[in-house]
Parts: sequence; C-alpha cells; structure tokens
Amino acid sequence: MTITDVQGFQASGVSSGIKSNDELDLAIVATEDRKPVSAAGVFTSNKMTAAPVLITRKHLETTGGAAAAVVLNSGNANAATGDQGLLDAEHMCHLTAKGIGCDSSEVLVCSTGWIGYPLQMESITSGITDAIDSLQDDQGKIAAKAIMTTDTVPKNTFVKSKGFSIGGISKGAAMLQPNMATMLAVLTTDVAINPKQATQFLQQSVSVSFNCLTVDGAESTNDTVILLANGKSGVEASPLFAEALTDACKDLAVQMADDAEGSTKTVFLCVSGAKDDSEAETAARSTANSQLIKCSWYGEDPYWGRIAAQIGASGVQFDPEKISVSYGGQVVYAKGKAQKVNSQELKKHMAQRRLDLLVDLGQGNGLSEIVTTDLTHAYIDENMRTS
Amino acid sequence: MTITDVQGFQASGVSSGIKSNDELDLAIVATEDRKPVSAAGVFTSNKMTAAPVLITRKHLETTGGAAAAVVLNSGNANAATGDQGLLDAEHMCHLTAKGIGCDSSEVLVCSTGWIGYPLQMESITSGITDAIDSLQDDQGKIAAKAIMTTDTVPKNTFVKSKGFSIGGISKGAAMLQPNMATMLAVLTTDVAINPKQATQFLQQSVSVSFNCLTVDGAESTNDTVILLANGKSGVEASPLFAEALTDACKDLAVQMADDAEGSTKTVFLCVSGAKDDSEAETAARSTANSQLIKCSWYGEDPYWGRIAAQIGASGVQFDPEKISVSYGGQVVYAKGKAQKVNSQELKKHMAQRRLDLLVDLGQGNGLSEIVTTDLTHAYIDENMRTS
Repeated sequence: MTITDVQGFQASGVSSGIKSNDELDLAIVATEDRKPVSAAGVFTSNKMTAAPVLITRKHLETTGGAAAAVVLNSGNANAATGDQGLLDAEHMCHLTAKGIGCDSSEVLVCSTGWIGYPLQMESITSGITDAIDSLQDDQGKIAAKAIMTTDTVPKNTFVKSKGFSIGGISKGAAMLQPNMATMLAVLTTDVAINPKQATQFLQQSVSVSFNCLTVDGAESTNDTVILLANGKSGVEASPLFAEALTDACKDLAVQMADDAEGSTKTVFLCVSGAKDDSEAETAARSTANSQLIKCSWYGEDPYWGRIAAQIGASGVQFDPEKISVSYGGQVVYAKGKAQKVNSQELKKHMAQRRLDLLVDLGQGNGLSEIVTTDLTHAYIDENMRTS
Repeated sequence: MTITDVQGFQASGVSSGIKSNDELDLAIVATEDRKPVSAAGVFTSNKMTAAPVLITRKHLETTGGAAAAVVLNSGNANAATGDQGLLDAEHMCHLTAKGIGCDSSEVLVCSTGWIGYPLQMESITSGITDAIDSLQDDQGKIAAKAIMTTDTVPKNTFVKSKGFSIGGISKGAAMLQPNMATMLAVLTTDVAINPKQATQFLQQSVSVSFNCLTVDGAESTNDTVILLANGKSGVEASPLFAEALTDACKDLAVQMADDAEGSTKTVFLCVSGAKDDSEAETAARSTANSQLIKCSWYGEDPYWGRIAAQIGASGVQFDPEKISVSYGGQVVYAKGKAQKVNSQELKKHMAQRRLDLLVDLGQGNGLSEIVTTDLTHAYIDENMRTS
C-alpha cells in the first residue's frame, strides 16, 4: 500500500520523454478535491541547492505551509542550471496549478537525475498535462515508479494506526547520506495537523530515519521530503502519529539501503559507549563511509582491524583497550586483541543480506545508529560514466 | 638511486618468512660505522597507534633524536596487538642493536601489513640476523622492495644538491590519506643537522608532500617517516636542504599515488579562490575522497556535477555562481552553467594517466593542492577479503 491508500489523495505517473525508451519519468501527487492541505518539507543542506528545492521552499513560505499538489520528475535534477533552472521549476508549478485549478504557490516541485543539464521543458509540459489527466486514487505505486533513477524497485510504505493512515513513496540509490542525498520522498496522511506542527514532526522523523542512512557519504543538491496532511480522518496529530510517521520514514530508508546502487549488503551499524551521542555519530559515519570497510562487507569479511583503525582516525575519544567490535552478536575484537569466535556462526552471519555491526567505545552512554551499505563492483559500473 | 647512494649508509632486505613464498619482508637501514646520527620522525595521528610507532617515538625521546639503525618489516603491522605487541617491537630493536653493536634505544622500528595479528617473532628473529649480515652500501633498493605490501613497484628517490645528497625509500598503496595512512618512508642524508632542526624540516616537508596525498581517506595506525642525517658532507642544513627534502618527499608521494591499489589515474587536484587555505583544503579533501567523483575519474568522465555538489556539501564558503571547474586547463563549468569545451582535447586529457583538476571557488586567495587517485574494480578486489 502507498500514498493513494490514504483517503483524499490521488497520484499519477507518466512517461514524458525526459528519459528514453518510454520510461516513466514524471509524477504528480494531488489532493482529490484539488484544495490545499497542510504541507511541510525537509530539504538538503547542500549549498549547491537545486532550483526545485529553492522554489518549493519559497512556495511553502508564501503559503505558510499549504499545498494542493506535488509535481516530480526523474532523469534531470534541474541543478546547477542557473536562472533558467529557476524559471523552469517555477513553470512546472505553474503548469500543474493551471491543470488542477489552484495557485502556483500551492504546488511543490521535486527533480532528480543528472546535474547541470537544462530541463527538457517541451517533454515536461506535455508530461504534466498527461499526468493531470491520469490522476487517480489507485496510482500511488505508478508515481513511485516514475520518480526512480538508478533504483531497481519502487519504494512504497503504508502505516495504519488508531484512526489515521500514513502513506509514502521515495527514491534514492546513490549519493545517499544524511541530509538526504539524492533522495525524494512524499508522504501523505489524513491526520489533522497544522503546518508548523507538521514541519516539527517531519524534521524529527527525518533525523532518525533518512538522515541515519548513508550509502556513499555524498549529499545531493536536490533532497526533499514532503508531507501532505488533509485532516480527513478527524484525528488530531499526537505522539502516536509522530511514531507512525517515523516508522513510515524508517521503512522507506531501509528500502533505499536495500536497493542502493550495486549494494549486496545492508549494514545496521550501532556505535555505543561513546562520550556522547555526537561522538557516537562521528564514529558511526566515519566507519560507514570508509571505502576500505565497505569493501570488506562486500567480501563478507568480519575484519575488525580497519574498523578500529578508522575509529582511531575519526577523532573521537576512546581507549584502545576498551573498544569492542561485534558482528551478529559475536565479539570479534575486545581488550586490545582479536577474540575467539564461532567461525561457522560468524560466516553465516556475514553471508546474510543484512549485517549487524556493533562498535562499543567503552567511554560513556553516547549512542548512534546508522544504516549503510557495502561498496561493490556494480557501484563502480553504475558511477564510472555519466553516459 | 636511493638511500644507500648517500655516503655513510647501508641497507639490506631479506625474506624472513612473515610473508609466504620467500618474499622479501624485512629490511634494515643502518649507518656504515654503526654510530648513531641525528634522527627525526613524523608519525600517524591515529589513536589506535601501533606498537612500533609507540616504541620508535619513545626511543627518539630517550636519545633526544639519535639512531644508528631502522628495522622495518612488512606483512604484519603489529597493530592492535596489546602488550605483547609492545614487547615484540621492543625486541626487534633489541635484536637489531645487539647485531650491529649499539644501544636498543638507538634503533627505530616500523611495521606494515595486517592489523591485529601477533608478530611471528621466530621469523623476525632469524630475519634480523640475516638482514644484519646482508647490510651493504648498494642494497637500498632491496630494502625498498622488502617494505612493500600491496605495492606493485618499489619506491626510491634521490636528490643531489649543492654539496649534499638525500635518498629515500617508501611504501604505501591503500589506506593512504594525509597524516600518512599505511605509509612508511625512510630518508637518509649526509647534511649536518641537529635533531631538533631535522624534526622541523621533516614536519614541514611531510605536510606538503605525504600529507597532501589521499587515496581512500583512511589513516593508518602505523604511518611513519624517518630521517637519518649523518653530517658526512660537512654541509650545514639550509633552506636549500629544506627544498631538496621536500622534493624527495614529493617524489615518493607521487610514486605512491601512481602505484595506489588498483588505481588507473593520479589526479593533481587544486582548489583555489577559497576564503582561506584551510577552507581550500576542506574542499579539496572532500572532493578527493568522494567515492562518486573517484568513479568518474576511473570512467574518464569530466562530469563536474558531482564535484560542484560535493563542494556544496563540504561546508566551505562559496557562491554557486562563481565556482568554476577545469580539467586539463579546460573550463567545464562556470557561472552556474556547463561551458562549451573542445571535447576532443578534453577526451584526450581524461584518457591520460595523470589528470589536472582545478576548482576555483571565487571567494579569496585560499589554496590547496592534493594528489589523489581513482576508485576502480581492482581496488575492491584488493580490499574485499583479508585472506
């Protein structure tokens, strides 16, 4: 189930011609009655901010957090495209607004794909017309397909809780690092929530889900997570909603790790026992983004030497005699030395798609959990050439 | 030419049995007369400091900067080996000192190889005996071979200037990032210099050579650069010596980049126009260590989009409208947009072994130069399994 399984939302996905071979590349998510609802966004912190991010931010400011639709395209990020890029992003909103009958500022826009090429506005223009004609309350999964770039599977989520629902779609396969690199997500809900609250809840959920995911340490120019809330359930937002929203975001984030470019392993990395949470996060990100360590996951090798070395170089406080490293619950390194392990069990764990890695620094109560992936031949194949 | 082409120094390299197949794995560099000379060292800042680094530092402190020999082994880093590791490193010095007839504290020790395995002291013991017996004034290149790990070629350098000489050997193929990851180097000179000055000169030279080299952003537990100066030329150290020492270090650093694990490109990356040198370095390191950008070098793709995005995420000050990116002198991106290029010339440049990449931030006079490499299938092959 997905975004359109939340009452009051429609979606569509079409092939506009931005991508070749009639691939889906343009999606719209809209309210069924075309009226604006509460809207919130969380965006990349990259200074090379792409045009659609700038326009979406501007529209949310103008409306004070209201939107009737989101228009998204894949295949071209409309980033580093100068003033023309801003005009094009604005024009995408204008065309969508005209088609569904709302104000331009009530449309949000997202783009993903190559950086630095002008948008193919002819394709986009006809695509938006098609997408508006195709809006239906069962097309959420088609929209999820239309925003894919190097993703191999679409990402959908749905959470039902006490009287309300949350649906979500997302994309993202490389350039994935907290602060959400090249990832887009749209979440819909029928909970009743004002824009200010929606922003707070969304920021909180993103910080413990998408921002705890790193594939290659790169942060994109276009990352955007949008939440639309139409209040149709009559249920007011509560801590229960916050929890459900986090569940939905985490589900999408793990799907993104499982489908990261060329990855064969999803690694659930926990750093505990740090001086504080911030040091734990530094150690965790440093480990997760190490090329050398990523290669050893690919090789299913529980070599802890590189992990200890990487943490030693990360600048966090720890005592080499107190640090321990465990894979799948088995301590491979502790007390300054390699530990005896059940090698058959360890081998079995390392052969799994999902690995559990715990690094305890033995200093304090600082904790950080990160989801990451391995580095493979296929990642290189995917990224060595742009055409 | 190499370390033993400097008057008054001998070296040797033997197969001790640490590595299989009778590969060379143990080297000694010693003064011809077995008397201590001025000695200086620069070391890793990794907190998981390996035993040999701790012992070498201690010996330099004890003697106030004097050494008669350096003993080095490859195949085992003697890192994360607990108290036994310290005893073993100390014992390597003791055996060498006994053999050549000096004090233990006048011997420095370096190890490189796998982390976390106890040293094979039986092999080491007989190896040291052999190596002392083999000390000759024409064996520097054999010593360079004996310290190799995944290096494919030995690294030697020699600089002759007004009345003095400098020779050097080094190794290092991955886990290379400033602060000198898994790199060892020994330099010899016949200049007259006191230990304090030698340390200052060495630090200065290392900071603009080895510390400007990054292969994969990893910093090793064992990095060591040692300088031995016997004063036999009668020439006092001068700015001319400082310059020659930097030349020798730079030559070795570039050889290390050219031979980095699996690399097909050596990239001379310059970031100019930053607010200050420190911001330039942040931007340069961030670019050099980006998996995504490294993949595009491998693919000979001058795609600037990822470079602009990476710098945008690096936290440095810049104006997206003012940043420019050039490969081989051709501006591929400026004024917020892709630029027209001579594509044949650009293609020719990208096909070379050595690439020139200039990123100008258009902010100030901050400058940083980094030497780095691409990320290839062969790097992954090399690093996915430890055995």
